[in-house]
Amino acid sequence: MQNILDNSALAAWRNFITAHAALIERIDGDLVAAECVPLSWYDVLIELQEAPERRLRMSDLASRVVLSRSTLTHLVERLEDQGLVRRERSAHDRRGAYAVLTDQGHAALRRAWPIYAQGIADHFSRHLSAGEVATMTAALERILGALRGTP
Amino acid sequence: MQNILDNSALAAWRNFITAHAALIERIDGDLVAAECVPLSWYDVLIELQEAPERRLRMSDLASRVVLSRSTLTHLVERLEDQGLVRRERSAHDRRGAYAVLTDQGHAALRRAWPIYAQGIADHFSRHLSAGEVATMTAALERILGALRGTP
Repeated sequence: MQNILDNSALAAWRNFITAHAALIERIDGDLVAAECVPLSWYDVLIELQEAPERRLRMSDLASRVVLSRSTLTHLVERLEDQGLVRRERSAHDRRGAYAVLTDQGHAALRRAWPIYAQGIADHFSRHLSAGEVATMTAALERILGALRGTP
Repeated sequence: MQNILDNSALAAWRNFITAHAALIERIDGDLVAAECVPLSWYDVLIELQEAPERRLRMSDLASRVVLSRSTLTHLVERLEDQGLVRRERSAHDRRGAYAVLTDQGHAALRRAWPIYAQGIADHFSRHLSAGEVATMTAALERILGALRGTP
């Protein structure tokens, strides 16, 4: 394990950041070209899809998609305008509003997934060996675990 | 090499996306707590710093930081408000404006770098073996090369 930031670690970080930006840009372009929801919308909709009753408290949703509460609120307003999400206040819970996936939101996800999956396959996993996939998954899991375990 | 998106490739992708978001959020928090420029500003300033005469045409800057031209324009306006960047029109070149790093921008970078480097070391490279660093660097380089080589 490396405590000091040497040139090789910095090269890995730079490639990590740059590859992420380039991948998101390309896959977003694929989705937009196919008239599907952009990736930032997809990420929010899929969290709702996977939640019980397709609904999540706004604060839980914000932490799952790693967005600030205010950024998420703006995004959910746009999703609501498009009919993909509905907001609800809970009667027995004062801790705030819920976001709920609508049927239209569910349909938007189903339409986007084949394009998104193709983008991941074409631009990401096609270039990786099985060993590299395993190494990256384990390494990033460790990084995520450490981030989640510390304040 | 994998042409089909199997579960292991999807797990790698999900960790890649989630770890990226969590790392950026944490390191951004470290920078803000130290009253330094946020990461999105840093990325723009460092490209100018590394360019000849610390200046780049806006379109070149946009492609280096992988931002749309309109997003970059907004960001550069904010950097100009803060005195970190100056915009110039070229006399002999009609292809548009340049962004130039100011001395204040240079100072902001120098102040932020130790915090940023510490964040990369603490949250990213500390959790990676030398072999994992090498694997990730090479794999992400290959992905980037393919993205840059195709329209």
